[in-house]
Amino acid sequence: MASIALARTGQKMPLVGFGLWKVTLGLCAEVTKSTCADTVYNAIKAGYRLFDGAGDYGNEKEAGEGVRRALKDGLVKREELFITSKLWNTFHAKEHVKDIATKQLGLWGIEYFDLFLVHFPISLKYVDPSERYPPEWFGADGKTVHLQDTPMQETWQVMEELVDAGLTKNIGLSNCQGSLILDVLRYARIKPQVLQIELHPYLTQEHLVDLAKTLDIAITGYSSFGPQSYIELNMDRGAGSLLAHDVVTSLAKQHNKTTAQILLRWATQRGIAVVPKSNNPQRLIQNLDSESFDLKPEEIKALSSLNCNLRLNDPQDIDGRLGIFA
Amino acid sequence: MASIALARTGQKMPLVGFGLWKVTLGLCAEVTKSTCADTVYNAIKAGYRLFDGAGDYGNEKEAGEGVRRALKDGLVKREELFITSKLWNTFHAKEHVKDIATKQLGLWGIEYFDLFLVHFPISLKYVDPSERYPPEWFGADGKTVHLQDTPMQETWQVMEELVDAGLTKNIGLSNCQGSLILDVLRYARIKPQVLQIELHPYLTQEHLVDLAKTLDIAITGYSSFGPQSYIELNMDRGAGSLLAHDVVTSLAKQHNKTTAQILLRWATQRGIAVVPKSNNPQRLIQNLDSESFDLKPEEIKALSSLNCNLRLNDPQDIDGRLGIFA
Repeated sequence: MASIALARTGQKMPLVGFGLWKVTLGLCAEVTKSTCADTVYNAIKAGYRLFDGAGDYGNEKEAGEGVRRALKDGLVKREELFITSKLWNTFHAKEHVKDIATKQLGLWGIEYFDLFLVHFPISLKYVDPSERYPPEWFGADGKTVHLQDTPMQETWQVMEELVDAGLTKNIGLSNCQGSLILDVLRYARIKPQVLQIELHPYLTQEHLVDLAKTLDIAITGYSSFGPQSYIELNMDRGAGSLLAHDVVTSLAKQHNKTTAQILLRWATQRGIAVVPKSNNPQRLIQNLDSESFDLKPEEIKALSSLNCNLRLNDPQDIDGRLGIFA
Repeated sequence: MASIALARTGQKMPLVGFGLWKVTLGLCAEVTKSTCADTVYNAIKAGYRLFDGAGDYGNEKEAGEGVRRALKDGLVKREELFITSKLWNTFHAKEHVKDIATKQLGLWGIEYFDLFLVHFPISLKYVDPSERYPPEWFGADGKTVHLQDTPMQETWQVMEELVDAGLTKNIGLSNCQGSLILDVLRYARIKPQVLQIELHPYLTQEHLVDLAKTLDIAITGYSSFGPQSYIELNMDRGAGSLLAHDVVTSLAKQHNKTTAQILLRWATQRGIAVVPKSNNPQRLIQNLDSESFDLKPEEIKALSSLNCNLRLNDPQDIDGRLGIFA
């Protein structure tokens, strides 16, 4: 399976992983949670080795069950898996980072993460996990965002201590722009190894991709299918589906592939990792199999030319003070 | 004259100022330098009260001569002027900020700046001003950029000390994105009062403008005429002139104004300060007079719809590691 060797440790991060963000969570949480362990188990069976989770996704325990069952059944060894999780905004203060990472490892039932990311460059007021977990964006009233003045440098220094303590092999950033990444690099003892960002042909972010490559930071693109996951949440900003876009369907026909495979290959062929999710067993295998063909340079260019800077995941929509992409 | 009251001090910053960036510097530096003092003197005579300079512009001494002559001739009092300068990239380390600000004040021949900005969120290796001044982007070989790991927090803390010491009334940022601005706010004892950014109808940056307004940070837009200044430098990226764009010329006709006035009013009518420059006495007065009419909301919208995210001033073009806008 194709992978990216991370700059610091040389550890290999698979180019295609399985994303654990459940867009239906909350709508039919019971169904989702009951099947999450099975989904992860089956994904491992199908050949997936990377699982992209987060405290915020609220399903680390269930995902961990699937992983442990697969380990127990001998489908895979722990060192063959690459498990990513993320630090939520309410735990940025130095006194909370290690505790919450330890709690998250406990939920998964594993000894270490392969990658632990700062989920957003946003610091929110601490919420005790025994009161509410995952705490999400709002305070107890369900509508007010409570900012907290924890500088990124404080957070990053404790992220580094997680590596020292063996709680994670690698650390990285998510949803960060160039100017902040460059500032982190100025004080980092352990440099961010991975940057996870929204990336699809409607949001190509060429400058950020170029910068990360120049800085030897591996990129994972999320929302590879564009508005798809957001259409279900009525958060698609009226953008048409990428999976049904003429340019994409036409390439799918020419290559005898699915449109999902075209969109994934647009990223992976340029060395950008992806973390699609699917509850459909057949699509799950198709997504993993998306490296079995190559797009021509002009085909990649045609896809990139769909760029319209459509950002689907922007916290500034939640609260005007959260303009991390402004 | 219309102005913006800065959040912390209440000091009024004029909406229309005079920008001292000399695009012709280097091409005909002798001519430019010899006339810079006169230009500033005449601008004050014409009614300009804000002058936007920078260490990097290499003309602080000459601009200061114009200012001092105007003060001496009683055209204006120092407290009626608003003088802005900027900290260059090579002076971000805590041991250099105060020395260079003091040197810059000496060049101007004034006691304090009204506003001192971090010119770029980029830290370069120190260059002794006695060796080369202004040091610009490259090392002694004229082609290598030497990065230096000074975190923005270190720089900002000394910027605050400039205020404590009375060397500047206000401090602010330039060329910064949302994620870094938010991080500065987490550790700032004295918050940035002004953000100076490239802003014109080809680069409208709505999210950043909204964020700054939400955070009570005044905005100064530079390059209000878009590619104009860059055409002379062959750095216009092939973009057509904004000053000659159909939408702009049509509005100019309707309002019986110059296209420059239309472009300036597009910003100032929304409370965004501008710092155009002109060596032409008539245009100088026209630019200052650009507040004497109002655009209709739909006219502002028509101008904003020209946005194509055309960024003319991007250090990533100089060195791939300088992706501050990525």
